[in-house]
Amino acid sequence: MPVRVAVDAMGGDHAPGVVVEGALEAVAEAGDRLAVLLVGREAEIRAEVENRGGAEDDRLRVVDAPEVIGMGEAATEALKRKPDSSIHRGIGAVKAGRADAFASAGNTGAVMAAALFGLGRLPGVLRPALPGYLPTPTGTCVLLDVGANVEVRPEHLVQFARMGAVFGEFFLDREDPTVGLVNVGEEPGKGTDTVKEVYEALRALGDRGAIHFVGNVEGRDILRHGADVCVCDGFVGNVVLKLAESVSTILPDLVRAEIGRQGLGADHARTVGGVLRGMLAPFDYQAHGGVPMLGIDGTVVIGHGGSTARAIRQMVLSAARLVEQNLTSRIARALADDDAPPHP
Amino acid sequence: MPVRVAVDAMGGDHAPGVVVEGALEAVAEAGDRLAVLLVGREAEIRAEVENRGGAEDDRLRVVDAPEVIGMGEAATEALKRKPDSSIHRGIGAVKAGRADAFASAGNTGAVMAAALFGLGRLPGVLRPALPGYLPTPTGTCVLLDVGANVEVRPEHLVQFARMGAVFGEFFLDREDPTVGLVNVGEEPGKGTDTVKEVYEALRALGDRGAIHFVGNVEGRDILRHGADVCVCDGFVGNVVLKLAESVSTILPDLVRAEIGRQGLGADHARTVGGVLRGMLAPFDYQAHGGVPMLGIDGTVVIGHGGSTARAIRQMVLSAARLVEQNLTSRIARALADDDAPPHP
Repeated sequence: MPVRVAVDAMGGDHAPGVVVEGALEAVAEAGDRLAVLLVGREAEIRAEVENRGGAEDDRLRVVDAPEVIGMGEAATEALKRKPDSSIHRGIGAVKAGRADAFASAGNTGAVMAAALFGLGRLPGVLRPALPGYLPTPTGTCVLLDVGANVEVRPEHLVQFARMGAVFGEFFLDREDPTVGLVNVGEEPGKGTDTVKEVYEALRALGDRGAIHFVGNVEGRDILRHGADVCVCDGFVGNVVLKLAESVSTILPDLVRAEIGRQGLGADHARTVGGVLRGMLAPFDYQAHGGVPMLGIDGTVVIGHGGSTARAIRQMVLSAARLVEQNLTSRIARALADDDAPPHP
Repeated sequence: MPVRVAVDAMGGDHAPGVVVEGALEAVAEAGDRLAVLLVGREAEIRAEVENRGGAEDDRLRVVDAPEVIGMGEAATEALKRKPDSSIHRGIGAVKAGRADAFASAGNTGAVMAAALFGLGRLPGVLRPALPGYLPTPTGTCVLLDVGANVEVRPEHLVQFARMGAVFGEFFLDREDPTVGLVNVGEEPGKGTDTVKEVYEALRALGDRGAIHFVGNVEGRDILRHGADVCVCDGFVGNVVLKLAESVSTILPDLVRAEIGRQGLGADHARTVGGVLRGMLAPFDYQAHGGVPMLGIDGTVVIGHGGSTARAIRQMVLSAARLVEQNLTSRIARALADDDAPPHP
């Protein structure tokens, strides 16, 4: 049985063309393991499929959804006003058991809200969280939450740590990944009251062996891979993720300006450019394509709005892998683990 | 009359030697405009001064303070246990009118607490704030608070914006600097309840012409100079500042690794290294040396713990400039401005 991924064909800055392209690539790459449902405006999607020499078959189906939620629309209102959007119908396909996962590069807020209302939370989950990832000199680290929850209570952050550890194991392919708490200092007792309480709870979880807690991680240590999984609220996580991502877009400008200032010749400029490109290759968000909403009772993967066909392909393939690896039930098990209650 | 700066000779990782060295350089550079009081263990400081061919005179005095607060000590306890520390006596010299400013690269928490208790707040100031600065491709931006206040109410953030705008004008040498609110999205209505309330208050201040408010600044826009002055709580500011600073220490490692991976020869490696150094030059924290605590009734400048002699020199010179430019009274005037009450 192939894994069936419903893909939001109308989601992202370059939809539907680029989404169709990426989905076709994913199907071609995955062979019998994957079937894709392209959800969106039927006629438009069919035209894009045909333009690319594709055709509907067992592994590629079009599911009509006449409405489109734009990237900039306010999530809750848009969901109410457009009950027949590609996001609703995609989530609906998962709910009805016609798909195993939903993947979208569309309006993140709308996807998260639709997933929360349509599929609900896993038993025991207080708040779903959205992880992000950051390349480091020695690999990749996971940061969560990155925007689903801008206001949190201590017990939420403790669950983020639990869910992040499970996701990190899968995503980083690392057993027992280290978990750190983003804070303003290394020592215990630093930070807000919330963060201090979380520190103690995570230490207790660490003592029990439920997670591999390594303490506080300061801003300067995040990109130095202070921990495999860095835990913070969605406000801090969102700012940190976007700041870190901006570095790889700012560097080329700085390098170009400095090359000009030094008046380097074309040869030297090429050498410098080659080093820069090689250095920045791991910082390419397209390599992973998307991240799952953790704590939802179902597999929902969210990609960058600016996704290219390659990023869409990776997003679809990673959604399929998450289903194969049973991430959702592994998170449910971790949270249900009696030895490690979510929080007193 | 020279500006008299009390300098914490025992503060910083390389005290007292490096501090004495930097203070001597500052005195040499500033000529008649500056007098320095070196506060700390008298005998040690005298030896360091003599070692460097210096001598006490009208422009260089040693003030004895037998106790030293270490960099890692908990601030409040250390202040109680060591009433004769260089930090106490330095702040005391300002309080008694024997110095116009105090500058320290020592224990930041202890300096802030001593300043708050010893000198107090300017009239109307709810919470003093500590600014940081970040180089951007087009200059430098100011970020505040960066750690003095990890938990804040909306009215605190509004005052940070007011104080930051006054400091930014001085520090960035820019009339009416733009002020942005660090947030998780560009649109009004994003973020926590606190941040939403601050947005409205800053917009009102902007409409009145009290500040040049440019709205929300996302993580991706901070290093792109989304605003001259970026306002946030001390938790977010501390993480952002340390993360941004870490980039310039991580890059050389990444570049070296990539040069090795590509097997570049020595010539090419030199070219790349030269571009990197040129690019990173503006990211050198020693250029500014220190930042003032905003909202304190007196001039108190805090430097990096790892300050070199050059950084100490810049810290002392900038303390003197802050006094000459009347930063403190300019902040007091801005906050007292009837047209723009701090917050309803």
